[in-house]
Parts: sequence; structure tokens; C-alpha cells
Amino acid sequence: MSDRIAHAQLRDKVMSAQEAVQFVNHGDKVGMSGFTGAGYPKALPGAIAEKATQAHGKGQDYSIDLFTGASTAPECDGVLAEADALRYRMPYQSDPQMRNKINSGAMKFQDIHLSHSGMMVEQGFFGDLDVAIVEAVRITEDGHIVPSSSVGNSVEFVNAAKKIIIEVNSWQSEELEGMHDIWLVPPLPNRIPVPITKAGDRIGSPYIEIDPSKVVAIVETDAPDRNAPFKAPDEVSEQIAGHFLDFLESEVTAGRLTYDGYVMQSGVGNVPNAVMAGLMESKFENIQAYTEVIQDGMVDLIDAGKMTVASATSFSLSPEYAEKMNNEASRYRDSIILRPQSISNHPEVIRRVGLIATNGMIEADIYGNANSTHINGSRLMNALGGSGDFTRNAYISSFISPSEAKGGAISAIVPFVSHVDHTEHDAMVFVTEYGVADLRGLAPRDRVAKMISIAHPSYRPLLEEYVEQAAKSRFQQTPHDLRHAFDFHLRSLETGTMKVEG
Amino acid sequence: MSDRIAHAQLRDKVMSAQEAVQFVNHGDKVGMSGFTGAGYPKALPGAIAEKATQAHGKGQDYSIDLFTGASTAPECDGVLAEADALRYRMPYQSDPQMRNKINSGAMKFQDIHLSHSGMMVEQGFFGDLDVAIVEAVRITEDGHIVPSSSVGNSVEFVNAAKKIIIEVNSWQSEELEGMHDIWLVPPLPNRIPVPITKAGDRIGSPYIEIDPSKVVAIVETDAPDRNAPFKAPDEVSEQIAGHFLDFLESEVTAGRLTYDGYVMQSGVGNVPNAVMAGLMESKFENIQAYTEVIQDGMVDLIDAGKMTVASATSFSLSPEYAEKMNNEASRYRDSIILRPQSISNHPEVIRRVGLIATNGMIEADIYGNANSTHINGSRLMNALGGSGDFTRNAYISSFISPSEAKGGAISAIVPFVSHVDHTEHDAMVFVTEYGVADLRGLAPRDRVAKMISIAHPSYRPLLEEYVEQAAKSRFQQTPHDLRHAFDFHLRSLETGTMKVEG
Repeated sequence: MSDRIAHAQLRDKVMSAQEAVQFVNHGDKVGMSGFTGAGYPKALPGAIAEKATQAHGKGQDYSIDLFTGASTAPECDGVLAEADALRYRMPYQSDPQMRNKINSGAMKFQDIHLSHSGMMVEQGFFGDLDVAIVEAVRITEDGHIVPSSSVGNSVEFVNAAKKIIIEVNSWQSEELEGMHDIWLVPPLPNRIPVPITKAGDRIGSPYIEIDPSKVVAIVETDAPDRNAPFKAPDEVSEQIAGHFLDFLESEVTAGRLTYDGYVMQSGVGNVPNAVMAGLMESKFENIQAYTEVIQDGMVDLIDAGKMTVASATSFSLSPEYAEKMNNEASRYRDSIILRPQSISNHPEVIRRVGLIATNGMIEADIYGNANSTHINGSRLMNALGGSGDFTRNAYISSFISPSEAKGGAISAIVPFVSHVDHTEHDAMVFVTEYGVADLRGLAPRDRVAKMISIAHPSYRPLLEEYVEQAAKSRFQQTPHDLRHAFDFHLRSLETGTMKVEG
Repeated sequence: MSDRIAHAQLRDKVMSAQEAVQFVNHGDKVGMSGFTGAGYPKALPGAIAEKATQAHGKGQDYSIDLFTGASTAPECDGVLAEADALRYRMPYQSDPQMRNKINSGAMKFQDIHLSHSGMMVEQGFFGDLDVAIVEAVRITEDGHIVPSSSVGNSVEFVNAAKKIIIEVNSWQSEELEGMHDIWLVPPLPNRIPVPITKAGDRIGSPYIEIDPSKVVAIVETDAPDRNAPFKAPDEVSEQIAGHFLDFLESEVTAGRLTYDGYVMQSGVGNVPNAVMAGLMESKFENIQAYTEVIQDGMVDLIDAGKMTVASATSFSLSPEYAEKMNNEASRYRDSIILRPQSISNHPEVIRRVGLIATNGMIEADIYGNANSTHINGSRLMNALGGSGDFTRNAYISSFISPSEAKGGAISAIVPFVSHVDHTEHDAMVFVTEYGVADLRGLAPRDRVAKMISIAHPSYRPLLEEYVEQAAKSRFQQTPHDLRHAFDFHLRSLETGTMKVEG
């Protein structure tokens, strides 16, 4: 047995995942650790999927409601979806199997702001939580949990759950201990200010306190996180990143930003990778990240002395960087902080630190509404994640995207977004490879030309045609031609491209 | 000269509005006090409108950009719009003249979250502010301003403006002094937590500190606020209020609310009036309001000992209650607090106090997206005001509305809202005279039946027909039939009713 279980009585609870799954019953509400492929349980999900498959084989009902921090991995969301083991899932997913099950109607998914999700469990909006299943680096002498490569909603889950199952994963480095900063706002009616004024402030403890009497099982694992290989930025991503960096420079020129005042929030992907590479060569110094996930580029910026601190709730590293972090975690303990997602994404702190939010999107419309989640209004891609938390409360909120997708069949700029995740009141700046549309201070009609200027040239005539028709509206605050508002999407559904054929 | 100007040198700046208007030039960015028809300047707006009319008569350009707290009155927004004196306006308006000018395209309007609007001025998103024009009860010995019946964005405006014009209105009671609590979050990068944990906490000073050297003019006035007569709730409002109060009771039963734990935020109108009347007879005690505006019903609740404190940024009283407040303000100084709108609407404090937000709407769709601002997607009604600030950060966010409007020609529940101000991720509970749709914890498809159940019966078959068609979508997360998503609105535009004729 691993010496990572330092609490004597809890060592008696060690068992296999196949034994532990007895505590996860049909109809249960289950909260799991896990965020962006880091720190999710590695063994129980497979055991639950197997239990579901066996039950279904006997004609019995078996499904659970699953809550996590954010996305997990094929061996968690993937196997559970494939086994039809889930009735309901929140708040985020990015798994291909699960996406298919959701879009086919086989399971229900609720897309919830990441900063709200744990709070809603705490507040009892879902009723009682039956089981919490959380991955740990180790269990302390007092029976507390040292989380692994993410914190997510684990604190809310172990607080709310009747039963706790802990997976102690020896793949995760023990050196991570001390990197976490566990602190939650006390529940209503006793909430107090979050005592963070700078991204790097530590306010809590390095472990999650639990009631050991709630622990029903401990499972030992030795399995890696889902760490996706780093993709080198392509030319379009480099162009978008270049425009974004120019925008930062122009904010310095305008006196609204200083070279040592950039607080970064960044989604994951090629463009953020290119932005971080560009920051290495830039005049920006003492960069801070107050964000959801620690990415390779942030580790590079820290190593180069360009970034002083990165606060997040999870790692999202390439296998190469994950191995480096596992080997050298102690070296990063002063510059990397992992917090509960209710704190990493807390509106209060986001507004206070004055960050510049930068997130991807599926599409935006000519008035600056953004869709992060649904293709053609109905088909879920992933979910909005923390994009709303950050966009709504950022000092400056920006969206970055190539101007087209699917080889030109999809335009990122459309007349009317087919789903709204971020309203015209919240999104400020949009960036594609064609430049920057800065919508701050502009009435809706004055945003149109800016948005069309960053559309792909092949879509600009179609957008201008729409605007011309919409301009005939009797009402000019936000002119629309509702009969043709979704023509781009309807063409896409019918012909496979938003372009007009022939 | 009024003895309300206690600062000796500033007494030299007293002049008429016609003289003071020399300081308001074409192209200026002007910030005015004023929120919901309370505390706006009474004299300068007319003088500016007159100056614009004269200039236009001579073929000269004259227009300004106008920022306020929220809505003002016919003698402010109304005359300025009628004189075509405005190029751009933010963040809110509710004036019929101005609405016409906006919808005709004669002026530009940007609809901004009230909690963001002053901050965006402070952050320099609009460039420099030329003039601040603020109404005061009096000017102190040190040259500071005691605001009148609202605070709004006045602090941000006098801080940012190059010139300040003060209107000292002797209609406003001097007894208001001591009711205000003036405190702003320090500007970036020095933001700190807002030290409010309970609605009734006072954290600031009773006056607005200004630099007297920036004051270019003081104008004396004696004119009432725009106080709209109280409308007694009609039968439908009573029914909606009844359902809302039942919902509060059911939250108590579910253990998610206590009879002395209700923190209220409430929009203005017939239904809120009916809710407040209902609360008088309810088991709820020690009610607190953390809201935008103090309404008649809150004064009644305070008088009855049912409400301990009401925190807001403005009064919005009937003429009868405004007179009472003017005569007896000192009696309410412990139970009513007027704050800057950046604090009354601050996401941080809203989340912390755990309030239940209750706002009106134009329409909501079957998946729980809400439109607060645009009729048929293009026509601006008022603006979203603080509804986003409160909805996004409330403990429970609710929307209340009669199920139909315009004698049945408009349904409040539609297949796809024609403008999104509050996304499906934020709105939780919808209430009409047909009941409560509680969407918490529900995936989109599970919300549909709940939303249709609160639609007017005459629209339910049309909604069900849409749902049936939409269910044929290949993608089932949020099934839509985009070809018919706006049929309700298109019928309304073409035939004057959302109903199918014949």
C-alpha cells in the first residue's frame, strides 16, 4: 500500500475500484474532481461505466448525474457516455463520445458558468449530493486531501457529499503539495470579501479539509492525466496573435495599460500559444495570469522571468511539460497557484485584478454578440466554461478566432449569432487574422463596419448585403431583417457551407 | 442667493443656466447626475437644448455625448432629444422623445450595464470627459457636494471631468444629508474589496469630494424630480405577485431561504408593487433591499417594521411619497442608504449579500434566454439598466412579466428571443400569471415544458408546434428550427399580432 495515505484509519478503506463502485448507485448525484483533463479520477469512472453496462445487460436501469470541475478525459467522460451511464452532466465537457451522446439526445447536459457550478451545489439547487470522487496526491496525517493537478469544484463536492471516495494517484508528483491554495467564501448568509487583491495572493491552506468519517473508499491509481500534445501555432494563429499584441501596445499608447500592468486571462489553443510566444519578445514585463488553466506558454514566460505569477484552478500542459512539472513542481511553488474554480473564476476577484480576458468563440455577429457553444444554434460543441465569468468582469474582454473554419465553409462573423453566450453588453474587442474590432464606446450601428472589417473577405459581401437589407428596418437601434437573420446558418445546414453556391 | 452654498469662493460662481451653458460646447462629452427620474439637473439640459436649437437655426453643428446614471425626465432627456442636441447617449433612457430619436436613427445609444458605465468612464474608454453637471442639495463649507435624490455615476463624472457645473436645487430636502454613503473602489491597479458584507453597511462619507477649482458654474434651481404617480396593481399583477410569493415560500420549505433571510432586489412597476404589498402580509421579516431604486412599497415595508434597510442609488417615488421623504428624510436616515451605482450594482456585493433578483422583461424563450430591451430585435424600448448586474450575480435570479401584452398581440414567451440580454446560463426563474417556471438544474430540453406552462394559453399551441418542428433537428442539445425561429416576431411585424390570424 502506498505511503501516500498517512491517516491510519483511512488506510483500512483502501480497496479496488470494482469494490468501491458499490457506493455509487443508480440515480446518485456524483461530484468528481477534474478540470481540463487534469486531476480527474482515473479508476472509478471505468468501474461505474462497467457497472452501468452490466445493469443495462440485465435490463436494469443504471445512470447517475455527474458534476465535475470542467472537462475530464476519454477514460472518464468518454467511457461513462459510451456506457450510457449518465442521465445529466454539468458544467462542461469536451469529449467526442459525450458530445455525440448529448447531441443525439441520449443524455442531458447543462452548460453552467464554471464560477457558479460549485456554488449551486452548495446552495442546494440540485438537491443532495450522494458521492464525491476526488483524486489526491496524498492523504495527510489528519485525513485531509492534497489535491493533484487541478482543484475544480472538489471542495464544494466533499463538503456537500454524503460519501467520499478518494483516488490516490502515485503518478501525480508529491511535490505539488504546497502549490494549492484552498479557500472558499463561507456559505450564505456569512459571505465575506475574497481577500485577494493581486493574482499572486495566497489566502488558504495547501489541502482540502474533509470529515474522514464520510470516506467510504480509497482507491490507489498510477495513471497520467490527459495531456494533449502542444501544437505549434500556424500562420493564421500567428497573425491573430500579432493583432492582439498590437492591440495591447495601442492600449499602452492610449494610457490605459502599462508595460508592467498586464494581467492575463487566456483560453487554451493555438492563438493563445502564439500570443504567449509573442509576449516573450514584447516589452511587457511582470505579467501576471489570473486564469483557469496553466499552459505551456505560461511556464515558458515564468522561466524567462517575464511572468511573475500564474493563478489558476488547473494545469493543462503537454505531456512534455507535465513531466517537467511533475519533476520540478517545487521550483514553481512560488509562481504557480492552484485555487478552487469558484475563486479562480470569481467575478469579484476578476474585476478587482483588472485582467484582460481573451477567449475563443464559434461565431460573433455584426453587433458584437458572441456564441461560444452551439453550431447552428442546436449542436453543442463543448460549453462556455469560464468565458462568461471572465468576459463579464474583465477590464477589457476580447474574443479571438480565425475568420473562417472548415476550409472556408463557416464564417466566424455572421448577421445574427445562432446562440448567445456573451451579449453585446459584455464583449468589447474581437480579433481575427484581419485585424481588431474594438467596439468599446460604440452604439450598435457603429459596430457593424468594424465587425465586417475582420470577417473573411469572401464573406464580407454577404454580410454587407444583410446590413443593407436590415437598414430598411423601421427601427434603427439594432437594425435586423429577421426573415434572413439566420440565412448563413440555414445555408450551412442545407448545403454544408455558409457561402452562396454557384 | 441660497444659503445652501456654504463655500465662500464658490458663491462667486453662481450664474444662470443661460450663462453656464457657455461651458458646454459642441462635441463635448458630458456626464450628468440623474437616475430613474431623480436627481438629474433641472436647468442646464433645457439651456443646452436651446443652445443646440439656436446653432442648428444658424446652420451650425451642435451636439454632445451624454452620459448619466440612468433615466432622467422630459425636461432633460426629452428636451435634449427633441432639439437633436445629442450625438451619443449612454447607459440608459426611458424617455418617449428620446426613444423615437434613437429608433429613427437620429441619435446613437449604447446600452451598458449600469455597474460598468461609470467604471468605463474612469478607465478612459470614452476618452476625456469635458463637463460634469450634477444636482446637489447643498455645497459644504469645504466645497463638497451633498447629492440630492440619487447618486448614480456622479462621483466618477466629477472625478473625470475637466469642468464641473453644480445645480443646487432648493426643492430637494436638506434633510437628505447623511443618507448618502459615498465610496468608490480605488482605480486600477489599486482596487480593493468593497467592504460591504450586509446591505445596511455604511462605508463612506455623506458627500462627494470635489476639486473646487474645477467648478466653473453654479446654478440655483427649485424644481421637483419626475415622480410618477403610483399605479395600483391590476389583477394580473396580483396573480404574478402571488406566484412569486409562493415561490419564496417554497424556497423556505426546501431549506434554501429563511423567513428572516430575504434580501430583495426589485425592478419598478406594477408587479413589484404587488409583491411588496404581499410581503406586508407574509411571514417574511427583517427583509433587506440591496437594489437600484427605493420605491413606495419599500418605504411602506420600512414603516411597518418588515424591512430593516434599503440600499440603493436613487429614489423612484410617487409624488406623494417624494413629498413625505422630503419632509421626513431624517427619520429614514438609518434605514435608507443611497450609494454610487457602481456600488449599489456591484457584482461583488450583489453576489455577497445573496439577494433574490426580480426584474421585468419583454420576452423570454423556451430555453430561458431573456430579452429586456428590444421589440422584434431592432426597436429599443428602454435599456437593460441593472438587470444584468443583478441577474448575473444573484443568489436566485427571477424574471416577472404578464404572459402577453398589447391586448394579446404580443406573447412574453417565444421560440427564440429577438435580442438576448440575459442568457440561458443566467436566468433561473420566470413568473407569469400562469405560474412559475423554475429552470434551475435543468438541461435546455427540460426547460421547454416549464416555459410553455407559463405562456398564455392562446400561444401554447403555437409554441408546441414550434417545439415539435424543432425536435426534428439532428442536434438535440438545444433543438431549433432556425427557418421558423422568428415567426412570432415576423407575424407581429407584418400583421400587428404574434397570433396566427383567421
